[in-house]
Amino acid sequence: MDTMNDEFYMSLALDMAERAQGQTGINPVVGCVVVKDGAMIGLGTHLQRGTGHAEVHALNMAAGKAQGSTAYVTLEPCSHYGKTPPCSQRLIDEGVARVVVACEDPNPQVAGRGIAMLREQGIEVEVGLLRSRALRLNEKFIKYILTKQPFVTLKSASTLDGKLATRTGDSKWISNGQAREIVHTLRHRHQGIMVGVNTVIADNPSLTTRMEVPGLNPVRIVIDSTLRIPFDSAVVRDGQAPTIVVTTESSDPVKRAALLDAGVQIVVSGAGPRVDLKAAMTSLGGLEIGSILLEGGGTLNGAMLENGLVDRVVLFFAPKIVGGGSAAPGTFEFPGVELMQSAITLEGLEVEVLGDNVCISGTPIR
Amino acid sequence: MDTMNDEFYMSLALDMAERAQGQTGINPVVGCVVVKDGAMIGLGTHLQRGTGHAEVHALNMAAGKAQGSTAYVTLEPCSHYGKTPPCSQRLIDEGVARVVVACEDPNPQVAGRGIAMLREQGIEVEVGLLRSRALRLNEKFIKYILTKQPFVTLKSASTLDGKLATRTGDSKWISNGQAREIVHTLRHRHQGIMVGVNTVIADNPSLTTRMEVPGLNPVRIVIDSTLRIPFDSAVVRDGQAPTIVVTTESSDPVKRAALLDAGVQIVVSGAGPRVDLKAAMTSLGGLEIGSILLEGGGTLNGAMLENGLVDRVVLFFAPKIVGGGSAAPGTFEFPGVELMQSAITLEGLEVEVLGDNVCISGTPIR
Repeated sequence: MDTMNDEFYMSLALDMAERAQGQTGINPVVGCVVVKDGAMIGLGTHLQRGTGHAEVHALNMAAGKAQGSTAYVTLEPCSHYGKTPPCSQRLIDEGVARVVVACEDPNPQVAGRGIAMLREQGIEVEVGLLRSRALRLNEKFIKYILTKQPFVTLKSASTLDGKLATRTGDSKWISNGQAREIVHTLRHRHQGIMVGVNTVIADNPSLTTRMEVPGLNPVRIVIDSTLRIPFDSAVVRDGQAPTIVVTTESSDPVKRAALLDAGVQIVVSGAGPRVDLKAAMTSLGGLEIGSILLEGGGTLNGAMLENGLVDRVVLFFAPKIVGGGSAAPGTFEFPGVELMQSAITLEGLEVEVLGDNVCISGTPIR
Repeated sequence: MDTMNDEFYMSLALDMAERAQGQTGINPVVGCVVVKDGAMIGLGTHLQRGTGHAEVHALNMAAGKAQGSTAYVTLEPCSHYGKTPPCSQRLIDEGVARVVVACEDPNPQVAGRGIAMLREQGIEVEVGLLRSRALRLNEKFIKYILTKQPFVTLKSASTLDGKLATRTGDSKWISNGQAREIVHTLRHRHQGIMVGVNTVIADNPSLTTRMEVPGLNPVRIVIDSTLRIPFDSAVVRDGQAPTIVVTTESSDPVKRAALLDAGVQIVVSGAGPRVDLKAAMTSLGGLEIGSILLEGGGTLNGAMLENGLVDRVVLFFAPKIVGGGSAAPGTFEFPGVELMQSAITLEGLEVEVLGDNVCISGTPIR
């Protein structure tokens, strides 16, 4: 049963923001609910970069009747002139009396200034209601705005013995339909999707988002030190989403030019022989790719993890055991740690049972 | 909130039986509740092989007042003279009017005869209430009574990448306290605990049951094809529980004699060079070991699983990733299957979150 209180409205604002994940690019997701005289008079959500902020949409819906109202906002209202005028000023202009904010905006251009602006005008501001949920919703935005590096989610689907395929390379199918639907939802919620060139060569995947409802396709990013990517592969040819190939200075310039001709973007990262993954993340961040879903093989997964470039690990386990020793590829192939106490550890563990599959996720700490 | 009905009493009978798991040896666990005139007049549980059955204890408590009562029994009352007289006859003699049975006794000496005896005397008998829970409680008994082979539970504690240790062999510690407490409860609930000789050489474990309350120690079973077991190892020397070493005909008779002198039991299984695991299970069953907890390394786990000798798999995962490739030992080391669709699959999957550890268990199907 519902209890009407501040949380009642804030959780709706968060629900709206949550559904918008994936469609705001490097911008945060934000929801806003404006309440007056015991009823909601405006709802708003930021839906796309360069379009109205949540507060603006909600106040537009309130149509000039927000005097004396309470506004619930999932993220601190902005204080700067960006692609839109500052929302704090709009809240002041509309005569809002009280603003409840779930979390501060870590954007250095805001960082408390929005809240200060409101308070200077005598508006009552409360900060921190459902803060942890609000921060989690914008973890990708927060990482990117503070570091200009993409937030990387490592996703794998393996057997219970940690294998991505059998010793003969067969991997059809590991995970169940429920798990695959979540993976495609994750694709929608990331701006980029990253694989190694071996995955392209072996499976020729399209790396697009396919769900019951249409979603957005992430930019396809292929790590390919020596440009072995086949020119007739789906990611080069199908035009369903942009494709970036990340390579090294030592790769063949003729192949590079041919890929450019085919409409592929090239990012050169390091002298070689292997792609400098840290530099690659900086370059991709520079291209305003604020989030990447890593669907790599064991070697790329291991290298990204060892380099501290993974922000979240999402492991789907199917109830299978396939054996095969080192002939069967594992989820994480890297030299590894010496001591168990030096293991990479997942913090804030979450476990979800999906029929006969299990999803275990958390934040990797080295 | 409770609702008083047949299930109300049967679930108490099952609760009593459940707590007795591990103390009845190859016998089943059974609970009984006798109800008359709206109240319980007798409770009973079978506690130890060779002592009273659940029905007998419950009727003794009822002290001759069970005329016209209802008896709830988790397993079909026995019909044969074993170590005790048949319980069906006792229920008849006491004038019980109605008997609710959770599941039939698959013991070929009973197998419906107990229920038939009661019905022949005009007692109303209902069968099947909470049957699946009752069958699960006695899965070890059922396997043993039907096949004379022990029920084997494979338990492992690994990292999320399926490693039992790092590449240097370090394994301290993988699982958390909650997981370790469950493992010791599992030890109490099995008659035998089985490891490979490499585990004895590497870790010199005592393989005893250590919990907040005292428990029963299982018989220690070491698979040791060539008798490499150190004579000063804990399982040979500490006298805390019997120890059986399973070896081959090709092992050194002098060492065998010395181990016998040290109080170790020897089971010879196969000509060698490796122990014939299937034959070993038959021999151990012949020694009235009806259940075994397998705490093996990857090779023994893999061999037992491939040979179809594992009845239940219980995998504890700690939120760690250690890498290390083939240098880091995995939970299952065996040649493996060719196709993903040929994977050994866990059915009836159960997932339990234990703080930051996850337990995934099920029945392996080849």
